[in-house]
Amino acid sequence: MTSDIKIRVAIVGATGYAGAELVRLLYGHPNAEVVAVSSKSFENQALSEVYPAFAGFCDLVCENQSEVVDQSDVVFAALPHGLSEPLAAECLQKGKRFIDLGADFRLSDEQAYQEWYHKSYDCPEIHKAAIYSIPELCHFRRSMSEAMIVANPGCYPTSVALGLYPALERGLVKTDPIIIDSKSGATGAGRGLSQTTHFCDCNEAFAPYKAGVHRHTPEIEQTLSEAAGKPVKVTFVPHLLPVNRGIVSTMYTRLLDGVTEEQIFDVYRQFYEDEPFVRVMPKGQYANLRNVKYTNMCDISLHPDWRTGTLIVVSTIDNMVKGAAGQAIQNMNILFKLPETTGLMLVPPAF
Amino acid sequence: MTSDIKIRVAIVGATGYAGAELVRLLYGHPNAEVVAVSSKSFENQALSEVYPAFAGFCDLVCENQSEVVDQSDVVFAALPHGLSEPLAAECLQKGKRFIDLGADFRLSDEQAYQEWYHKSYDCPEIHKAAIYSIPELCHFRRSMSEAMIVANPGCYPTSVALGLYPALERGLVKTDPIIIDSKSGATGAGRGLSQTTHFCDCNEAFAPYKAGVHRHTPEIEQTLSEAAGKPVKVTFVPHLLPVNRGIVSTMYTRLLDGVTEEQIFDVYRQFYEDEPFVRVMPKGQYANLRNVKYTNMCDISLHPDWRTGTLIVVSTIDNMVKGAAGQAIQNMNILFKLPETTGLMLVPPAF
Amino acid sequence: MTSDIKIRVAIVGATGYAGAELVRLLYGHPNAEVVAVSSKSFENQALSEVYPAFAGFCDLVCENQSEVVDQSDVVFAALPHGLSEPLAAECLQKGKRFIDLGADFRLSDEQAYQEWYHKSYDCPEIHKAAIYSIPELCHFRRSMSEAMIVANPGCYPTSVALGLYPALERGLVKTDPIIIDSKSGATGAGRGLSQTTHFCDCNEAFAPYKAGVHRHTPEIEQTLSEAAGKPVKVTFVPHLLPVNRGIVSTMYTRLLDGVTEEQIFDVYRQFYEDEPFVRVMPKGQYANLRNVKYTNMCDISLHPDWRTGTLIVVSTIDNMVKGAAGQAIQNMNILFKLPETTGLMLVPPAF
Amino acid sequence: MTSDIKIRVAIVGATGYAGAELVRLLYGHPNAEVVAVSSKSFENQALSEVYPAFAGFCDLVCENQSEVVDQSDVVFAALPHGLSEPLAAECLQKGKRFIDLGADFRLSDEQAYQEWYHKSYDCPEIHKAAIYSIPELCHFRRSMSEAMIVANPGCYPTSVALGLYPALERGLVKTDPIIIDSKSGATGAGRGLSQTTHFCDCNEAFAPYKAGVHRHTPEIEQTLSEAAGKPVKVTFVPHLLPVNRGIVSTMYTRLLDGVTEEQIFDVYRQFYEDEPFVRVMPKGQYANLRNVKYTNMCDISLHPDWRTGTLIVVSTIDNMVKGAAGQAIQNMNILFKLPETTGLMLVPPAF
Repeated sequence: MTSDIKIRVAIVGATGYAGAELVRLLYGHPNAEVVAVSSKSFENQALSEVYPAFAGFCDLVCENQSEVVDQSDVVFAALPHGLSEPLAAECLQKGKRFIDLGADFRLSDEQAYQEWYHKSYDCPEIHKAAIYSIPELCHFRRSMSEAMIVANPGCYPTSVALGLYPALERGLVKTDPIIIDSKSGATGAGRGLSQTTHFCDCNEAFAPYKAGVHRHTPEIEQTLSEAAGKPVKVTFVPHLLPVNRGIVSTMYTRLLDGVTEEQIFDVYRQFYEDEPFVRVMPKGQYANLRNVKYTNMCDISLHPDWRTGTLIVVSTIDNMVKGAAGQAIQNMNILFKLPETTGLMLVPPAF
Repeated sequence: MTSDIKIRVAIVGATGYAGAELVRLLYGHPNAEVVAVSSKSFENQALSEVYPAFAGFCDLVCENQSEVVDQSDVVFAALPHGLSEPLAAECLQKGKRFIDLGADFRLSDEQAYQEWYHKSYDCPEIHKAAIYSIPELCHFRRSMSEAMIVANPGCYPTSVALGLYPALERGLVKTDPIIIDSKSGATGAGRGLSQTTHFCDCNEAFAPYKAGVHRHTPEIEQTLSEAAGKPVKVTFVPHLLPVNRGIVSTMYTRLLDGVTEEQIFDVYRQFYEDEPFVRVMPKGQYANLRNVKYTNMCDISLHPDWRTGTLIVVSTIDNMVKGAAGQAIQNMNILFKLPETTGLMLVPPAF
Repeated sequence: MTSDIKIRVAIVGATGYAGAELVRLLYGHPNAEVVAVSSKSFENQALSEVYPAFAGFCDLVCENQSEVVDQSDVVFAALPHGLSEPLAAECLQKGKRFIDLGADFRLSDEQAYQEWYHKSYDCPEIHKAAIYSIPELCHFRRSMSEAMIVANPGCYPTSVALGLYPALERGLVKTDPIIIDSKSGATGAGRGLSQTTHFCDCNEAFAPYKAGVHRHTPEIEQTLSEAAGKPVKVTFVPHLLPVNRGIVSTMYTRLLDGVTEEQIFDVYRQFYEDEPFVRVMPKGQYANLRNVKYTNMCDISLHPDWRTGTLIVVSTIDNMVKGAAGQAIQNMNILFKLPETTGLMLVPPAF
Repeated sequence: MTSDIKIRVAIVGATGYAGAELVRLLYGHPNAEVVAVSSKSFENQALSEVYPAFAGFCDLVCENQSEVVDQSDVVFAALPHGLSEPLAAECLQKGKRFIDLGADFRLSDEQAYQEWYHKSYDCPEIHKAAIYSIPELCHFRRSMSEAMIVANPGCYPTSVALGLYPALERGLVKTDPIIIDSKSGATGAGRGLSQTTHFCDCNEAFAPYKAGVHRHTPEIEQTLSEAAGKPVKVTFVPHLLPVNRGIVSTMYTRLLDGVTEEQIFDVYRQFYEDEPFVRVMPKGQYANLRNVKYTNMCDISLHPDWRTGTLIVVSTIDNMVKGAAGQAIQNMNILFKLPETTGLMLVPPAF
């Protein structure tokens, strides 16, 4: 029943938060072993020096990026945009699977990439080999095990897409306006130091940032356009929450005439009935990041506001798990024909 | 230049958070003195037993409500809805000013009150004597010193009204849809114990509550309808933030054709140019509750999203000050013909 | 290699924090299954109603305490003191193992129990069947699989005992004074509502409580006296930390003449060299609750202060895991002859 | 009654946290005006650009240090150690008062300074003009208005000295051991970025640092030796608390034989009976940083542990106010013969 394979995993960019979360989760994965880690900033240092939490669990020493590909069956990369492409090309050439937690392969439209990232593709030919995969929404899920490159979705886009896809695809709501008010914990800003994430600036504070101009916008629009069957635009405003982990997206669309509460809940429940990582909450309950943190779960709650004909959808994930490392492992499981839940069925802590 | 008057203040409901904040602020007010405090739950106990922070500053003992009116020139009430009306009637009869931090006098339309609070007015005749006052937006501000009853606005409505009034009144935006995504610190839920505000439930957590059904909705619509010159409806979703103080409201409306960024900033700057408590932030900066906490300030930032024709307005206040006790004192200053800023020009702590 | 047994577990007091943590951890245990849960306050409600985090993972309905014993091989009880004894007696009679996370069986000296808990034993005869077990320090560890009742240690005593036992037993330090300054996250105060753990009271706050009079004092002294080979007394002051989880104990004892830094580190490293759950940190690093939270680990750091001849020992655990549910499962593993680490080798999250 | 003088204040190092707090507090001071601010890192930038909280309140532009002395009556310096001495010399020469929030003038023993700061005095001759002043404990308080240089005490030493001075001076306790376990909010680490104060590292975390080797140790010993009338040594361990503001010091000394609880409380109450900024808490209450934050107050609670003959003293201050800017202003008030409380009688917020 359980597979005997042991996937050799290399992590590039292992000392960033997504990399560290991969280490934590893969340690508990019965069919994967982290065999090599790489980090530009901490080369030759043990990972457990950077994260004392890992002492005794993962004391691998960070190698140069060039040394890790050959040791592995699959390479996870958590790198700033622009740096994944050449590494993906190398993996492709060497027949290694490549799972990119960065932005390089997320947009299918190169022009959109240029517009938002101010950069062209360096290796345009390899983009055809890449599949963008939120597994629950991915049309290629069944055939995905053939893919060599997986574009692992962004954290905000994952929370938004899981929240709005059913309503748009099943025709519950209008496609304009789509207002997305997201709030993310501070791990979303990464391990790098900044005034914004200095404790005294971030604690007992709250504000939006990059309102309408965040780079996750085109990725969100790409998925929602697919759901709607036509191009849609969204107003997307992220905020920085004074918590370590978690994203809550509160989303506002207009209900189509005649849609009933029962229909809304039915659509969502059916859409996700076979999905172990998505919970559609009972009527009257609210999705709360508390209930998903440290896990690969996505909780969705639905709140029609009949006074204004608005469907309010609330979606929450752990930005570092379903929004990054967990979903990447879920994608790895698919690539290697393991049950998607392998190593990922973690009970959310109650507190 | 400075007035010599000393206003005798009584606070009813003094041991709730709004009451405690009144005590803190009035202690620093040169023309007011708290002469009596009342509390149902803590009768005969010193306020400083309930709040050791006040020891040595305010050691008044909580009296029965019936004993405090006579000692005062003005009564502040911070009571659950339904309890202010009879007290206001008593004050009116005795010629005492009454400033209500509760909901009883906020809605001019009794039917709306009935609908949202499931209760009729007990003393409908005295409602004519009440003025609802966010001073910066109050048409009666100049003549308000005659008022006997002031309905001090709710915390969310204050943040929303200050943020959207200029855009609606000056015709920058359409009146539909109006999406209001608000986030409040936990003091907004009061001093009473609840699972939601139990530390381990609230810390490292985030969720909306009462989506579309919060009682501040009709109060928001009342003010925005006045601004727009016609009835408007809003979609209002509050969220609970894991911080002690502060509200951030992120608001979404559609820009009218042809409106420019310059116009937007001009309208807001002109609207508030003489207002000491409102700061329209420079282009590119974001209103952050960190910069207003413990003070009566309201920061507003403006973010047109040209891709979708949306005006994103962000407004932040300290829910306990401009959203409650501070604004109540600002209203008291008006009633007693003092400069509005008296006792309220507190520099926000930088951290 | 891996055992095939499946231990049937019942949890009494399942809706308290320790109970909920047992559920979380046992779900990931390959040889245990939670078959029944009981809760006085939430009888007939699903556990996932109380903790929506568990929805889909554990939807067991809380039964009456009387119904759960028969269904199980082992009963975990997380009850207020005084309530475990009769339940233990019932288990003993029915041949079920009983693991008590409460205080009833922790003190071997009934007089000490009476003094600190103001109560006599109800079933004094069954106390002989109980073993108090911090496994790393338990003399009966090898023979413990015969035990019918396990007294699972308190959270503070676990952190203190693991930190000071080696120094006292190996004669590095004097036995007087022993100063213990402990700080615990708010889960230590339980799920019950109180002003102290109301979010706005606990957040951005810090204070000691029960200085010198906390009920964990005799339990600490019992273990340290055993280590020292003679009766010792400690000054113990707990504090409430504004975090959800974790205990840090900073402990001060006087070094015996001639002891060197090398000796100190050697003693601790040798003492714990075969212990998978204890990490003695390298010289110069500090034990931080961040590095153990959500896991069964205990980190210990050592800081001799030569100026004053003081050995400063810092010990940190997750109060809900090694301080409660995790250690209880570790004890269950011993009872059922499983490797102690079964189901408990969780990598601490880096953030 | 109130003085008419207006002290012209310059702040050097104004963009650090202590500098910013001086700005906040001096704005509310009736006899002081901040006329010039200086900052190496932000020269030519408005202070309100660095701290948007100050916009509209203090929009002074940071000047070069060389430009600010002449404009002022008193210079406050909040600089890294070693940088205050030359500035003090300049002020002395120009007849300006100098209040140093840094470490350069705190130790009267140059050798101790060399040992702990690895540096000699650059201007040894001016140290005679300096007075170290925790006003409540300063023997020169009455004559201090003649002083040209004030060494404003460190944050930890202030909390410790106020807590232990009475017990040592009045002979309640032995002078060995003296164990000091202090916990400070993150503002104590300053505005500069560091991994330790990165939000995700500091939040939901807790650990000691610099155990036994913190530079405040000799300053603490200097004051306590004075209190004891003989040289004393202390074991001092600071910890980083996940809050913005506040220090709690829990201190352990051995009671002398025969001392009673009544005596203990009497000594402390008498010692501080005329001190507006120190509150000795009633028996059974605990000093909590919540009750002093944002103010110049120090709360002290006393807990004799008769079982071990230990006096546990808990002292709490706001590290940025009584531990830095507030005490500096209190000292300024003394220099300029104003009531010590001028501008400083702020009611602590209850939350």
